[in-house]
Amino acid sequence: MRKPLLAALLATAVSSIALAHDTPAVVPGTSALATTLVRIRDAALASDYAWQQTAILTDEIGPRLSGSKGAAAAVQRVAAELRALGLDVKLEAVKVPHWVRGAETATLTNWKNRADGLSHKLAVTALGGSVATPRQGLSAEVLPVRDFAELAALGRDKVKGKIVLFSAVFDERMNAAGRAGDAYGAAVAYRANGASKAAALGAVAALNRSAGPVGNYQPHTGSLRYADNAPKIPAAAIAAEDALLIERLSAKGPVTMQLTLTPQTLPDADSFNVVADLKGRELPDEIVLVSGHLDSWDLGPSAQDDATGVAAAMQVAATFKQLGITPRRTLRVVAWMNEENGVMGGKTYAKTHADEIARHVAVMEMDSGSGHPTGIAANVPPVALPLLKPISEVLAGIGAGIVDFRLTAVGVDIGPLSEAGVPGFAPLTDGRDYFTIHHTAADTLDKVNPRFLAENAAVLSVLAYALAECEPLPRLPVTP
Amino acid sequence: MRKPLLAALLATAVSSIALAHDTPAVVPGTSALATTLVRIRDAALASDYAWQQTAILTDEIGPRLSGSKGAAAAVQRVAAELRALGLDVKLEAVKVPHWVRGAETATLTNWKNRADGLSHKLAVTALGGSVATPRQGLSAEVLPVRDFAELAALGRDKVKGKIVLFSAVFDERMNAAGRAGDAYGAAVAYRANGASKAAALGAVAALNRSAGPVGNYQPHTGSLRYADNAPKIPAAAIAAEDALLIERLSAKGPVTMQLTLTPQTLPDADSFNVVADLKGRELPDEIVLVSGHLDSWDLGPSAQDDATGVAAAMQVAATFKQLGITPRRTLRVVAWMNEENGVMGGKTYAKTHADEIARHVAVMEMDSGSGHPTGIAANVPPVALPLLKPISEVLAGIGAGIVDFRLTAVGVDIGPLSEAGVPGFAPLTDGRDYFTIHHTAADTLDKVNPRFLAENAAVLSVLAYALAECEPLPRLPVTP
Repeated sequence: MRKPLLAALLATAVSSIALAHDTPAVVPGTSALATTLVRIRDAALASDYAWQQTAILTDEIGPRLSGSKGAAAAVQRVAAELRALGLDVKLEAVKVPHWVRGAETATLTNWKNRADGLSHKLAVTALGGSVATPRQGLSAEVLPVRDFAELAALGRDKVKGKIVLFSAVFDERMNAAGRAGDAYGAAVAYRANGASKAAALGAVAALNRSAGPVGNYQPHTGSLRYADNAPKIPAAAIAAEDALLIERLSAKGPVTMQLTLTPQTLPDADSFNVVADLKGRELPDEIVLVSGHLDSWDLGPSAQDDATGVAAAMQVAATFKQLGITPRRTLRVVAWMNEENGVMGGKTYAKTHADEIARHVAVMEMDSGSGHPTGIAANVPPVALPLLKPISEVLAGIGAGIVDFRLTAVGVDIGPLSEAGVPGFAPLTDGRDYFTIHHTAADTLDKVNPRFLAENAAVLSVLAYALAECEPLPRLPVTP
Repeated sequence: MRKPLLAALLATAVSSIALAHDTPAVVPGTSALATTLVRIRDAALASDYAWQQTAILTDEIGPRLSGSKGAAAAVQRVAAELRALGLDVKLEAVKVPHWVRGAETATLTNWKNRADGLSHKLAVTALGGSVATPRQGLSAEVLPVRDFAELAALGRDKVKGKIVLFSAVFDERMNAAGRAGDAYGAAVAYRANGASKAAALGAVAALNRSAGPVGNYQPHTGSLRYADNAPKIPAAAIAAEDALLIERLSAKGPVTMQLTLTPQTLPDADSFNVVADLKGRELPDEIVLVSGHLDSWDLGPSAQDDATGVAAAMQVAATFKQLGITPRRTLRVVAWMNEENGVMGGKTYAKTHADEIARHVAVMEMDSGSGHPTGIAANVPPVALPLLKPISEVLAGIGAGIVDFRLTAVGVDIGPLSEAGVPGFAPLTDGRDYFTIHHTAADTLDKVNPRFLAENAAVLSVLAYALAECEPLPRLPVTP
């Protein structure tokens, strides 16, 4: 492994936008690279390329669930757009789960003081991968619990035969305070694992309060994980408002629900990662990878999950092309398939490109919405953080408040590469509004702020170019 | 007409919470009435009665569209609750329109650059009173226009055979600046009158961008008015996000929609206004009326439109009962039927009670959501405004910022009484969040702030008691 050169940079007290490199033949001297990074940053900020690509993916294509026609159309379209940029584009085969939504209704059919003939229709959506109820639905009492401990305390006698509702609160204060991901992580455990935990105690179906702030009466879909040691029961998310309704009614007396979910899991489908290279001018076998995921949930156009991530990654190449810049290493733009329900794109890539992983110098995935970037998440050894400071200083100039890096896990699709030791990055974004629309029909293009999206594209572009020019960062320990 | 006595009050420079009256036998002196008003205010603020009644109407009953089982159940339940308070309750027959929603789907089936097999499903809801499309739906190009002028400029040649989309912008800045009603009024003209304007030029259907802020991807229903001189065509609202989508796609090329709406207008149904009297101790034939409307749209529990209005009106009686107070005049609590699509409750009452209208001293209807009250809308002769100042001063004490009255039209149901000269009132509320959920499935109980609702109940209670005690205000000129 080469010695990181950025370290020398700090040692020599460069100016706030100076960045060192070791390719004097091409970028003569410290200030030249810094100047190039500033040009890249400003070109990315001035461009609407990512916004236009997001519009194509959302307005012209729409939902892109793995195995769907939308996903297939997105593959072809993104490949065409990247070819139009002059990149070397490959469609790399990926077998993906093929789950399709069916009918979905949840109706409260009895509660205390109900007048004859009344029922309450809820906002419900099956979780990705859920098995179906009987075609005519099932009817059972709803048992709301706030957490797994409360479920366990109730025990099999109370849970058996019930529809368990995990009415876990999404921490809106945490979300508003800049920890959107943590708030989501806490709530989403019930979506991911609730069905099997409930099934293990005899429940006939599981519901979760949607993992997001209360307010827009949207059910949030997302994937679940069935455990091997519990029956597979149907699972769905309901709008937070309806979870609160059930809590209130249940406090007065038993509540009965008629639940119908008829999704199907079809045979695995053929799909693709889109992999597009802009060959490096000097070290073409070494790779800096920028990416987003092309698949999405099926409830809506999924603008910020993750059309904007794909589009911003594409803009890195577009910016280099626009400026006539060829980086020292190869820039690889990847649009991943199947992030949402299987990660088969990321896993397949790691296998197919196994012999090449050692030459992946850095990987990036943008998949936390396209809010104003507030920093950079870095999955790197701690020793690498100070080496990145000069890049951070270039990015601070975009008004994004990027003054440091945060050590954390990054994108799901690049997880296998991180496990293999490749330093990983993602923009940290202002996510306050993200989980309101996340995995719902409301994740629409109009909510994408073009300026913030361009800022994210600038972050990726600057980071990608700097890492493609300089000596490699120290790698992560390989996960056994 | 008696001389308003409140005028004397101001002339004698009372203290900020003093209020004069002319019933010394019962409330001995100015300060006694003021003290009573303060007691009423504070009792109303401390009570959760209105919140509990709102919970009954939303959680236990739900949507209450005229002619529905929900509306019928609400009539019985509110009557029972008012009887439980000890009021003299009558159900007064009202014939109401009986419109029922059917299937409703809007799908974009073609647009420029559409890949084979793709379509876009929109969030759509029929407008109340709309006629149906053919059962299999209709298919036509969508023609977005921003306003009536643009439609007229296009003319019959361009409009004929199209689905016209009135993509009028809801003025969110005006809404945020405290003029929610004005913002709504401007946008709702297209929902109310768009279908006939479009039909007059040969359109086959009309859509409107939902009359509310963009953001939660909810379609907002509401009533339309068919003109006599144009064909009746099907009409629906789409989510604002989808209107923006159509605008963007239409800018690139023609957009085709498949639209299916199968509502039905059934024969008029039998329903009721709930009319409950707390007999006045001295002038039982003179009436101060407080009200909200019991019917609602059918998409959701309609907490703020208008369960809270009914509940706050009920709380006026509850507060008087709790304090053991009997006002000088009769307090009449009315829960109106059919505000949303016909106003048959208000119109019928005005006819049935025609001989009594001259003895209606004041009428109130709360129907602008239950946000923090910021003042009082008063439909009174301008000369009456200063007479109300002392009441305003009592109410300023609730921290509601009520420092004055605003001359404006008030409740739809009490319109016929206003036309007959009766001074009318309503709380002015902070409506910034109201039109986001108005007429959607998202108008749920959890969005009702119990404190703000109690503040509104306090406003109605204080106003009702003061007007029931004091000399009558000058009446409005009678509309010929």
